[in-house]
Amino acid sequence: MTNTARFELFSFWRTSATYRVRVAFNLKGVTPQEHTINLDAGEQRSEAFLKINPMGAIPALVDHGPGQPQTPLTQSLAILEFIEESFPTPALLPTDAHGRARVRSLAAMLAADTHPLITPRVKKYLTTQSGFDDAAWRAWQIHWFTTGLQALEQRLINEPGTGTFCHGDTPTIADICLASIIAVMRVFKIDVPGIPTVMRVMAACEQLEAFAAADPSRQVGAPKV
Amino acid sequence: MTNTARFELFSFWRTSATYRVRVAFNLKGVTPQEHTINLDAGEQRSEAFLKINPMGAIPALVDHGPGQPQTPLTQSLAILEFIEESFPTPALLPTDAHGRARVRSLAAMLAADTHPLITPRVKKYLTTQSGFDDAAWRAWQIHWFTTGLQALEQRLINEPGTGTFCHGDTPTIADICLASIIAVMRVFKIDVPGIPTVMRVMAACEQLEAFAAADPSRQVGAPKV
Repeated sequence: MTNTARFELFSFWRTSATYRVRVAFNLKGVTPQEHTINLDAGEQRSEAFLKINPMGAIPALVDHGPGQPQTPLTQSLAILEFIEESFPTPALLPTDAHGRARVRSLAAMLAADTHPLITPRVKKYLTTQSGFDDAAWRAWQIHWFTTGLQALEQRLINEPGTGTFCHGDTPTIADICLASIIAVMRVFKIDVPGIPTVMRVMAACEQLEAFAAADPSRQVGAPKV
Repeated sequence: MTNTARFELFSFWRTSATYRVRVAFNLKGVTPQEHTINLDAGEQRSEAFLKINPMGAIPALVDHGPGQPQTPLTQSLAILEFIEESFPTPALLPTDAHGRARVRSLAAMLAADTHPLITPRVKKYLTTQSGFDDAAWRAWQIHWFTTGLQALEQRLINEPGTGTFCHGDTPTIADICLASIIAVMRVFKIDVPGIPTVMRVMAACEQLEAFAAADPSRQVGAPKV
């Protein structure tokens, strides 16, 4: 592990987007200094954190490398690309342009089309403005997890790029996004039927310590089982 | 304009995600052959289109370049990165890693955090499963457009990277995503207050023919005013 002092990562044990960043750093062998922002206690709106990231959002990554701007890096997909550019080995994107486009497209199906629908701010709107009770919220979560993962399953089955992982035989940004969704589904105790290929890829990811060590259950602040 | 015969773009006049791809190609001086998939008529689920993209989603970009796979490229953010890699000039991403991360983060606030919440499939769920009437759907749209664009405004005001455009003085992927959201808001006749910097950047985009020519109102299939 290298560069321990260079990066500070503001995160929370349960969130899918910080899981992604954690896995990418693990795969690159880089350990940021991680700070918990307790979303359940509203710490993302504390004066101290708003000085670091005025948007009050995690993940936020501060780069203390020499001469680097102190504006935090935000948005998990942007941070994953930054990590890939800063630490090229092992590669988390394929070498050909079509392969990279496929990986980014698979990643976006999950990180852009699926995950934003089941975030805390959406839950807040639907439960306070739209009369959703716990059952309606859970049905909503299940609907979008199912829609996103069954669509991914169809692509993984039918497209020739699929290998041990979503694309080929080494993990990419697409696998990181896939695992981030499954990890959060487990936190919510939700199962999606009909996704054997997705779950085979997830099992391959979990064989790797980079993924296993990033699991929500193993982070500071996670409830004791 | 070059490479006219290389790309086929499946699109619809109104959709934000195809607008993004259209602007990026325009900025690069590349003209794909564009085919309308009429979402109002359900053509995305037609047998003919499902043979091209089994996911039934647009934008879908087929690359007829020599030796290229015929699996269509999908997801607008992935397609924008592909266009940038394939046609590097003029650059739609900055040359420094932190700048690229900022541009991708601004883009994700709109294309990943905002737009997925106001898509037709979300409207379908909320109106058929959750009892949303027209007023409730419109309030939902306004809420998420306002949340996304006011958050963007705060970043554009406070972060040193902002210039004539979202980042510096030439258009990037962030401006393409910003303009795609404003263009769709106009289709829905929605205004968001308190975003003068966002609207200043939008005006700078509209000075460029690459953006103006991509406007929904100027596409095949748009209603006559």
